[in-house]
Amino acid sequence: MRAIVITEAGGPEVLEWQEVPEPTVRPGEVLIEVTASAVNRADVMQRQGFYNPPPGDSPYPGLECSGVIIQGGYGFEPGDQVCALLGGGGYAERVAVPWEQVMPIPENISITDAAGLPEVVCTVWSNVFMLARLRRGETLLVHGGASGIGTMAVQLAKAHGAHVVATVGSHLKGAAVCALGADEVVNYREEDFSEKVRADVILDIMGAKYLAGNVRALKTGGRLVVIGLQGGIKAELDLLTLLNKRAAVHGTTLRSRPADEKGAVCRGVVENVWPLLSAGAVRPVVHTTLPMAQAAEAHRLLDSGEHVGKILLLASSPA
Amino acid sequence: MRAIVITEAGGPEVLEWQEVPEPTVRPGEVLIEVTASAVNRADVMQRQGFYNPPPGDSPYPGLECSGVIIQGGYGFEPGDQVCALLGGGGYAERVAVPWEQVMPIPENISITDAAGLPEVVCTVWSNVFMLARLRRGETLLVHGGASGIGTMAVQLAKAHGAHVVATVGSHLKGAAVCALGADEVVNYREEDFSEKVRADVILDIMGAKYLAGNVRALKTGGRLVVIGLQGGIKAELDLLTLLNKRAAVHGTTLRSRPADEKGAVCRGVVENVWPLLSAGAVRPVVHTTLPMAQAAEAHRLLDSGEHVGKILLLASSPA
Repeated sequence: MRAIVITEAGGPEVLEWQEVPEPTVRPGEVLIEVTASAVNRADVMQRQGFYNPPPGDSPYPGLECSGVIIQGGYGFEPGDQVCALLGGGGYAERVAVPWEQVMPIPENISITDAAGLPEVVCTVWSNVFMLARLRRGETLLVHGGASGIGTMAVQLAKAHGAHVVATVGSHLKGAAVCALGADEVVNYREEDFSEKVRADVILDIMGAKYLAGNVRALKTGGRLVVIGLQGGIKAELDLLTLLNKRAAVHGTTLRSRPADEKGAVCRGVVENVWPLLSAGAVRPVVHTTLPMAQAAEAHRLLDSGEHVGKILLLASSPA
Repeated sequence: MRAIVITEAGGPEVLEWQEVPEPTVRPGEVLIEVTASAVNRADVMQRQGFYNPPPGDSPYPGLECSGVIIQGGYGFEPGDQVCALLGGGGYAERVAVPWEQVMPIPENISITDAAGLPEVVCTVWSNVFMLARLRRGETLLVHGGASGIGTMAVQLAKAHGAHVVATVGSHLKGAAVCALGADEVVNYREEDFSEKVRADVILDIMGAKYLAGNVRALKTGGRLVVIGLQGGIKAELDLLTLLNKRAAVHGTTLRSRPADEKGAVCRGVVENVWPLLSAGAVRPVVHTTLPMAQAAEAHRLLDSGEHVGKILLLASSPA
């Protein structure tokens, strides 16, 4: 088969569409003929050499895909259209994946668009709802509101009756995020969110750079969930404020969790989020779709920060 | 009535046993004739001027007491023997308290010993079990294992099937904490706990000084609960480690919570911890008992750090 190989650590140009061995299907896994995958920030870090795949996972990038089962089991039959959360290997024509991480395509969603759902939906569901337990009427602050995760967090939180504030880097993105249902947007180039926002739950991708501001922006009982470190890894924490607010700082990643934990997230997603997608209350936000062989171009686009929503990579024509 | 008045911010000598007005009993409150109260670190901070009582609470120190109901309601009758979690005012002959924070005396426990239970039991139950959800087989690290909170945390965690490690400042204290059931003790004057211990849950009173070590000592999925800041308020947090471990830092206090939240903690305690005390599986650890008029001496004793368990203050002869 062919896959995008990271020929060495470096810029987008190190990504090459090459002939590679077929994946090994281990016990507990099914094999998927990939229709599409999608680009995540973690793929860029992996390309740069900063984020190796968990032991035993595919060396090729790609944390999610959609496609068709070609070797089933565990309740899956060849021909089933599915999407899946992957430890890696989505940028390929075929990928083996633990069955727990495989989900049906939501009704009324195309198989291509479904490729961009697993990472963002599982990330938002596991962090904002399972971990931080966002409740109806609470305020969620989402950093990077126009990102793949941001656009899904805004929609899901609104669908669950929360008040949603998102930070964005431009007026254009602000308008896009408002159109998805955000109650307020803060342009971080013009305003300090920590002066303006008070939130029960904060979903953060900036890490160190925003830690003090995030703690300042938490309400009493607030929960800060840090899932990315784009603004650095170490920062001073004001524990007195944390105690006075009875607040929490959670750090978490989805990729490194064992299959059974990912499976629990996927089951929660199918039960709670798929019906919202099928009903149109929440929709996949796709910025653009490129052939998988042009993964380098897709990475350049992600790096540019110009996108709103997901960048998809098409491995083959949609079924 | 008489109460211990903080005549000005300062050392133990500012505590004076004086004639003061009777407490006002507000709607939702009952009035207790105090048998005994107990000394907490927060009382020392309040004496020093660093920790004012929540608005509306008594100006006198004392976060817990035992005694007899003299003005009841809400299911309490005059003559009922009780103990209570207070916002303040325990160092007095009478105290008014929201009924939700009043608990029966556990069977087989003396009314005097019960004075030292509410703070430590509610603190340990709310933080280690309700918040951090310590599970059977997990490891709990307790800092200050010989303190009032430490001695209760060690016993409760053992009673719930956890592996318990405690830090202590002397071999004598280590022996006392082992006798209460700790599986391991670390003398912090001789060893670095962060090199030696890996814990699922850490109950911390040191704050800044221990933050890096605590994060290092957390296992994957670990929960650090900071309830005291004896080692400072600001420290660098390594978010990368927090993310890689999928761990959390919680800051919390019991005193500032509203009565309904304190009530929920008290109900959990009566249901889950009182039976263990009545059965002798967990016991109150009392270092010594002094007349309430000698509160200054009790504070000197707490400051010395020589005690194991609670220092009680007797307002009147036990009923």
